[in-house]
Amino acid sequence: MRDFCAQVFRKIGVPDEDARCAADVLVTADLRGIESHGIARLGWLYARRILAGGIVPCPQVRVLNDLPVAATIDGGGGLGPPIARRAMQLAIAKARQAGAGFVTVRNSNHFGIAGYYAMMALEHDCIGLCMSGTNPWVVPTFGADAILGTNPMAVAIPAGAERPFVLDMATSAVPIGKLQANERLGRPIPAEWATDERGLPTTDPGLVLRNVRGSVGGGLLPLGGAGEETGGHKGYGLAMWVEIFTALLAGAPLAQPADHPESAGGDSRMTNVSHFFGAWRVDAFRPVDEFRADMDTLLRRMKSSRKADGQTRIYVAGEKEFEAMERRRRDGIPVPKEVVADLQQLGSELGVKFPGDASTGSC
Amino acid sequence: MRDFCAQVFRKIGVPDEDARCAADVLVTADLRGIESHGIARLGWLYARRILAGGIVPCPQVRVLNDLPVAATIDGGGGLGPPIARRAMQLAIAKARQAGAGFVTVRNSNHFGIAGYYAMMALEHDCIGLCMSGTNPWVVPTFGADAILGTNPMAVAIPAGAERPFVLDMATSAVPIGKLQANERLGRPIPAEWATDERGLPTTDPGLVLRNVRGSVGGGLLPLGGAGEETGGHKGYGLAMWVEIFTALLAGAPLAQPADHPESAGGDSRMTNVSHFFGAWRVDAFRPVDEFRADMDTLLRRMKSSRKADGQTRIYVAGEKEFEAMERRRRDGIPVPKEVVADLQQLGSELGVKFPGDASTGSC
Repeated sequence: MRDFCAQVFRKIGVPDEDARCAADVLVTADLRGIESHGIARLGWLYARRILAGGIVPCPQVRVLNDLPVAATIDGGGGLGPPIARRAMQLAIAKARQAGAGFVTVRNSNHFGIAGYYAMMALEHDCIGLCMSGTNPWVVPTFGADAILGTNPMAVAIPAGAERPFVLDMATSAVPIGKLQANERLGRPIPAEWATDERGLPTTDPGLVLRNVRGSVGGGLLPLGGAGEETGGHKGYGLAMWVEIFTALLAGAPLAQPADHPESAGGDSRMTNVSHFFGAWRVDAFRPVDEFRADMDTLLRRMKSSRKADGQTRIYVAGEKEFEAMERRRRDGIPVPKEVVADLQQLGSELGVKFPGDASTGSC
Repeated sequence: MRDFCAQVFRKIGVPDEDARCAADVLVTADLRGIESHGIARLGWLYARRILAGGIVPCPQVRVLNDLPVAATIDGGGGLGPPIARRAMQLAIAKARQAGAGFVTVRNSNHFGIAGYYAMMALEHDCIGLCMSGTNPWVVPTFGADAILGTNPMAVAIPAGAERPFVLDMATSAVPIGKLQANERLGRPIPAEWATDERGLPTTDPGLVLRNVRGSVGGGLLPLGGAGEETGGHKGYGLAMWVEIFTALLAGAPLAQPADHPESAGGDSRMTNVSHFFGAWRVDAFRPVDEFRADMDTLLRRMKSSRKADGQTRIYVAGEKEFEAMERRRRDGIPVPKEVVADLQQLGSELGVKFPGDASTGSC
């Protein structure tokens, strides 16, 4: 599947190394159980946008300033994953040299799962941080229009014998994919997830999706839900933090949701995405071995603590995804028939053979 | 009121500069409308703990390692505010020199409002970050025992003509003070705030407070509420991020909730608190003036966007607190009669005259 994705990217002008990077980011999302950000997006979010001229396949990436601990990168409108990987590599190199490193990126595109880049820090005994802007799908607290992204943040922290801590979260209550999944199944959504065009909580996922795509109003709620009573203003604040660390620190032109139809609505129309990457060397603060041992103790304490009635297990961030990866490396990645059909179609258009078996819907 | 607080601290052995710092942190909380963290705590959380030997009034603060961008400080068991201010000053000095600076602190005590220290970065054209561990009041997602702190994080970001962005939030759905306030008023709490001893949502604030103080089980829920459906695992992940950046990076001895009765229950018994401070120079990424102008545009866009039905105003993080400060600087700080009585009692014990008028309950 990595080969297929990489071949598709190469066919449409992406240099080999970048093609393999983007393929790895997509397949890693599927391996980690985050199918919403995996190969299902190869066609409509990446390949077809390159073909349509919305993403530059071989961009001129420029480092705009370069200090010992900080840099700003202009991604040249290129594919998100290779730009993001390069930026995170730079942040890690700075951290190894100076103790910490931070890189903002503007003029990039959707980069897949934020956790991928944060986790790059782990093998260097560093803590990784990654944030990204996204399309405006989220309403501010007390607001009725979607003018903020789902703006994910990811933090990856090494442990010892335990798996690393990997928090990778949209700052909205849920990502947009959860509404799409509920709409497909004809299921109502919890009132904490989204609002209608008047800014009031709704349980109808289709209404929300149509409204935002049509710029009618409403959208996803921040983490914490509507209003302030259950902390929705905190999720809104976290989304603003990400917005500022990505678009504003990187000097991206501020989107004009009211004027630019491009900036509202579906992911496929998103352009000029900004990111933020950070790395801290653990041993800038204390010896790595001691830190790793304490991480093991902390993570085990969480997992072994008393369970709520009806629950059998307490997880730590990233654990479910690591287990999905182990399972899927062994058993394969289940891919829905529609996705297989879409990838076969894409492959046949570009003359790249799709490796999966459409009759079983898995590869 | 600042004078009164500072005199109290001096009377019990706190050096003058530290006493004035701690007084300013407490009064600033009241000015910003965060009474739960203000002078109401002078007696039971600070002064009486110094008198009881739980806080060292004149500690030996040691910088354990000191790299260009990072340091670790041992607070010597001293009063939180002066240790925290010194650590944040060090982070800012590093940022001014190197572009970014980070300082972890162990062996400190409760430091008041996290936003106070994050905001210290603003006048240096820096972005400030502050995190702190707290007493274990929060249950992990699917858990039944309070083994995590409310672990606040604060981010302060300069703007231009607009007030700065100041996000200062517990990573739990609400701080413990909200349960106490509801208990006093005999009001039920929303089911998203806390659990009973079985780890199931409850609307009885008194039950939760008694259970946690008695180490019976249950506690506050993470931001996002119970389970994963509304994002409670994200709040839990944020609390863990803070736990790791404070206690684990600083090398604090990990609390043993099961063995040490000290580490469970009320704030008054908290010892060995850890903090994390960070600062980034804005001009490490882009010119400050351009950044400030874009901040104004972003903040105004939020505030001027369409309101939800029944709402008249959209805030940005910190705005309510800045307005409270302006109002209270003009009109004074309302102080409940019980707090005035408590402070008068404390003052008369120490021979420090309380300046307020107990009959009106304000000062």
